[in-house]
Amino acid sequence: MCTAVCYKTKSFYFGRTLDNDVSYGEEVVVTPRRFPFSFRHAGQAGEHYAMIGTAFVPDGFPLYYDAVNEKGLCAAGLNFVGSAFYGKGEGDKVGLAQFEFIPYLLGSCASVREAAAALQNITVLDEPYNAGMPPAKLHWLIADRKEAVTLECTGEGMRLYENPVGVLTNEPPFPVQMFRLNDFMGLSPREPKNTFSRKLPLRAYSRGMGALGLPGDLSSSSRFVRAAFAARNAVSGSGEAESVAQFFHILGFVSQPRGCAAAGEGYEVTIYSACCNADAGVYYYSTYEDPAVRAVDMRREDLGGKVLARYPFRRRLTVLRENSVR
Amino acid sequence: MCTAVCYKTKSFYFGRTLDNDVSYGEEVVVTPRRFPFSFRHAGQAGEHYAMIGTAFVPDGFPLYYDAVNEKGLCAAGLNFVGSAFYGKGEGDKVGLAQFEFIPYLLGSCASVREAAAALQNITVLDEPYNAGMPPAKLHWLIADRKEAVTLECTGEGMRLYENPVGVLTNEPPFPVQMFRLNDFMGLSPREPKNTFSRKLPLRAYSRGMGALGLPGDLSSSSRFVRAAFAARNAVSGSGEAESVAQFFHILGFVSQPRGCAAAGEGYEVTIYSACCNADAGVYYYSTYEDPAVRAVDMRREDLGGKVLARYPFRRRLTVLRENSVR
Amino acid sequence: MCTAVCYKTKSFYFGRTLDNDVSYGEEVVVTPRRFPFSFRHAGQAGEHYAMIGTAFVPDGFPLYYDAVNEKGLCAAGLNFVGSAFYGKGEGDKVGLAQFEFIPYLLGSCASVREAAAALQNITVLDEPYNAGMPPAKLHWLIADRKEAVTLECTGEGMRLYENPVGVLTNEPPFPVQMFRLNDFMGLSPREPKNTFSRKLPLRAYSRGMGALGLPGDLSSSSRFVRAAFAARNAVSGSGEAESVAQFFHILGFVSQPRGCAAAGEGYEVTIYSACCNADAGVYYYSTYEDPAVRAVDMRREDLGGKVLARYPFRRRLTVLRENSVR
Amino acid sequence: MCTAVCYKTKSFYFGRTLDNDVSYGEEVVVTPRRFPFSFRHAGQAGEHYAMIGTAFVPDGFPLYYDAVNEKGLCAAGLNFVGSAFYGKGEGDKVGLAQFEFIPYLLGSCASVREAAAALQNITVLDEPYNAGMPPAKLHWLIADRKEAVTLECTGEGMRLYENPVGVLTNEPPFPVQMFRLNDFMGLSPREPKNTFSRKLPLRAYSRGMGALGLPGDLSSSSRFVRAAFAARNAVSGSGEAESVAQFFHILGFVSQPRGCAAAGEGYEVTIYSACCNADAGVYYYSTYEDPAVRAVDMRREDLGGKVLARYPFRRRLTVLRENSVR
Repeated sequence: MCTAVCYKTKSFYFGRTLDNDVSYGEEVVVTPRRFPFSFRHAGQAGEHYAMIGTAFVPDGFPLYYDAVNEKGLCAAGLNFVGSAFYGKGEGDKVGLAQFEFIPYLLGSCASVREAAAALQNITVLDEPYNAGMPPAKLHWLIADRKEAVTLECTGEGMRLYENPVGVLTNEPPFPVQMFRLNDFMGLSPREPKNTFSRKLPLRAYSRGMGALGLPGDLSSSSRFVRAAFAARNAVSGSGEAESVAQFFHILGFVSQPRGCAAAGEGYEVTIYSACCNADAGVYYYSTYEDPAVRAVDMRREDLGGKVLARYPFRRRLTVLRENSVR
Repeated sequence: MCTAVCYKTKSFYFGRTLDNDVSYGEEVVVTPRRFPFSFRHAGQAGEHYAMIGTAFVPDGFPLYYDAVNEKGLCAAGLNFVGSAFYGKGEGDKVGLAQFEFIPYLLGSCASVREAAAALQNITVLDEPYNAGMPPAKLHWLIADRKEAVTLECTGEGMRLYENPVGVLTNEPPFPVQMFRLNDFMGLSPREPKNTFSRKLPLRAYSRGMGALGLPGDLSSSSRFVRAAFAARNAVSGSGEAESVAQFFHILGFVSQPRGCAAAGEGYEVTIYSACCNADAGVYYYSTYEDPAVRAVDMRREDLGGKVLARYPFRRRLTVLRENSVR
Repeated sequence: MCTAVCYKTKSFYFGRTLDNDVSYGEEVVVTPRRFPFSFRHAGQAGEHYAMIGTAFVPDGFPLYYDAVNEKGLCAAGLNFVGSAFYGKGEGDKVGLAQFEFIPYLLGSCASVREAAAALQNITVLDEPYNAGMPPAKLHWLIADRKEAVTLECTGEGMRLYENPVGVLTNEPPFPVQMFRLNDFMGLSPREPKNTFSRKLPLRAYSRGMGALGLPGDLSSSSRFVRAAFAARNAVSGSGEAESVAQFFHILGFVSQPRGCAAAGEGYEVTIYSACCNADAGVYYYSTYEDPAVRAVDMRREDLGGKVLARYPFRRRLTVLRENSVR
Repeated sequence: MCTAVCYKTKSFYFGRTLDNDVSYGEEVVVTPRRFPFSFRHAGQAGEHYAMIGTAFVPDGFPLYYDAVNEKGLCAAGLNFVGSAFYGKGEGDKVGLAQFEFIPYLLGSCASVREAAAALQNITVLDEPYNAGMPPAKLHWLIADRKEAVTLECTGEGMRLYENPVGVLTNEPPFPVQMFRLNDFMGLSPREPKNTFSRKLPLRAYSRGMGALGLPGDLSSSSRFVRAAFAARNAVSGSGEAESVAQFFHILGFVSQPRGCAAAGEGYEVTIYSACCNADAGVYYYSTYEDPAVRAVDMRREDLGGKVLARYPFRRRLTVLRENSVR
């Protein structure tokens, strides 16, 4: 499945892992302002905000998994298979196919506040990209440097939730995940105090014991708690290198080694981990095959143009050799 | 603290994390065969096996944290502060200061079997390297491609344990850690079956739920279970790149993001992660600051020589930029 | 707080614990068919089904905590403080004050099916019994020998849920509790198999290890899981004595010893535990102070009458002495 | 298996549960001072302290499971199947068959201090009661109102441990159980404070949440933690009735409902629960079949005599009927 996270130092960082047993050929894709988005029921977006993110581009249209626009608005879609329910269109609301949602939202909104207003008038449709690709069942983390929200479309309609923890995973629905965090309120990065019984000579024999009880498996509900703990307690320098390194450590706390979570005959792994500096428009990523951090800077592209800039993920271990052949 | 792990595909890999709140200037150090080890009570080792590993070299003597010799024998010392107890010397056994232990053992033994035999005649002494450096209280994971053992010196004497799980962390003593794995025997990478009650319509709503109950905090006992689960269920291709990447993912499963485990006023982090191909003598590492994998190949050094080859850890984020300045 | 449970052998048993730090003077109360219930907005119930249960009777009106009627329909109200929301009346629905709910429902319905139909036309009002007694915020377990349902009135309206587990505690709402049972689907009364790793010599060193991971605290969400596990795996003979003893053992699995759950300056304890044979109309109970089982048989009362039969709870330890004074 | 517990209010109480899938016909047995104990290698005890406890009496000799003597010294034997190791006799130590251990110790020692001294000179032998009854593999909780100790005979010899928690269950050995309590030091009967993250609006939605993380299964290691939590946090009035009721609630916290822990084709249940006022010599018990508390008072027997007083356990549900036949 996946985990999405917000983190702020001097800049605002937004990122996610994508966990799956197969990769579909993801790439970093920069969509410049005049790339022609023609939406099925929502008209043509002649000029729009530029954006950068990870997408699968089957035939010219960038199917974004997550992206950040030039105004710093961020969105990531995460699997929500058991609960997502898209409608057939509602009255005079703007109907968007699921795959159009991120381009439309990031193309037209500069902030969460604007997005929330726009969403009043949007409905997500149960409409496939093409015959072979049914709509992905998703919910979304939408954030800027001021706030984060979660959008869910279920049988009970579309709901937008404040997301004070800045984290999203998969099932169950966000309010249930959020409520369950209460069960972990007593965990802490600090050394535990003996409150079990003052009559007993108990002691901390290791650092980290204040978080005993934190779940360690890779299910979506455990990843939610883990990501919340790591992200909301994260400490780093505020420079770019330190912030980015810290972000990848937060993602590492919910990453999936091959062999720990079966998926049919294979295993889920963290296909890619991504972190975008939403202020600067620099998109960093690493892959399961290569932990080295790579970056694409949207401001190095012609953002006024019409053509997608595409950087396929590198999937080979980079080894930086410290000694040369003798 | 730390976690050490064994992993085997086509080659045998041995590695560890070192978790602390400060770094002492670790470097990758290759000790060639004729580097003069003069042991305090164990004489001079004129010629010995060459070795590679991470060491702190205060004034010419490599204080190894972990190392692998040219025969594929591996050893790592891990904190064992509450239980380690070194003696004052015993009868006619060879007395080794704690800091001499790895050089002596890897210098003279070609396998765990040889090491086990040698250990019959060794005692670890409570003798400091110098006035400012009291002996580190450690226990050791010793392994080759055939087997692994744990060595512990406690108030009850020196004990060598078979280590079928190929993992070591810190407190409590190894037999206690090993026994406690029984509590997790029902966990699995597979989807759980409903054994709670056939009368109830329970279902797995996420991959990874078979390991619900796996501890997620960073204490030494939780890391032991986590490392065992990740290492013993790990699946990867058998090539070098895939094996090394997988090894770092296993270590990632017990790595410490800054902020999750307080250490006084600061926080523990995974200072470095290392993985050595014990067959080839190639030592890979990454640091908290930079996830990119670097490598030192001992066979690219003059192993017949007398001089240490030293490669200080690189501690700056490497960013591989995919688009150039426009 | 409280836990309610259904259990079936030859007869159908329905019961609950009530956990609190103070007792209000509960009694077993039999309401005969012609006891005059005058409801505030729902008219007079001249003749109705007789019922037995625990009630507080402040001035003649039995405020039932839980009850069973002569047809075997059972209902228990349990604290639901954070989520319960009663309205002000809705269109032409029958408005019932919360304290009238059990008398009205059990007075007029012979089965869960009838109750479900009646509930279509009922609304629970935010109306106090008197100035000093604001309406208790509750949700209800309603059951007969065929099925069980949960009724919740929240800000989203009144909802009736099938309750396949036959258990209710307190917060969070029932669907959330029910969903979370999925997290425990791999637990079992049976000895665990080693699925952690076939490479490791793990073994069960104690009976009961198949349920490792079962929560053990006294919070409402943990009691839900515990009661579900104990009730749905319970095994007993089908005779009355064995079934009743087993029922009290199930309740014992979620009972609260004084000192384990603070409530302000005091502690929650299981004030009473009750078990009613819903077929026979025999109500069994024990109290915190006395584990001996006492019984009131509604069929030993004049069920055609008008007057409540009241049996205040006995709250002194009964000791059955086996040897007499010498 | 079993759980033994100490509790002190005005009087000192010592008791235990015995969990098994079959009962062997236990009875409360008072051994008066002149009952002739002839030990196999330890001579004849002509006169000794009187004692009361639960025993199986196959042919005249009381095989005590647990007992208290007239001086207030208490001992209980609990299963320790995987680790107990009895020897063949050692030098000039007094050799006792396992089944003689409690009679010998309670017959001759008035306090834990005296018992500890006597144990210096005792060895427990691997000698059966008769051909059909191999020695039970046990360890012991020994206590008086001042202190408690645990005695274990393993492959490493006989060890006596201070037992500050006053609790014993089964495997693993006591020092391991005691060490593991450290993992629960942060649990508390109090409401948890939000230490997860001050940035998040977390709250306690139920009483009892301070103990989230307390294990809830019936394995010996989980029962150890549970009994420690309940016993060391127990609060009760200091009178006899309140203290005894509280003791049974503590035992209830580790009791086994039938169906939760399989034992072969059957299930473990708490065959009996016992609580002895060690000051007064009154032995209280209840059985799985009947929660009513029964009592045998040793001071109502002729303690100067030679004949066992035996009170077979009552195993039928006592129902105290509150209304009589109409």
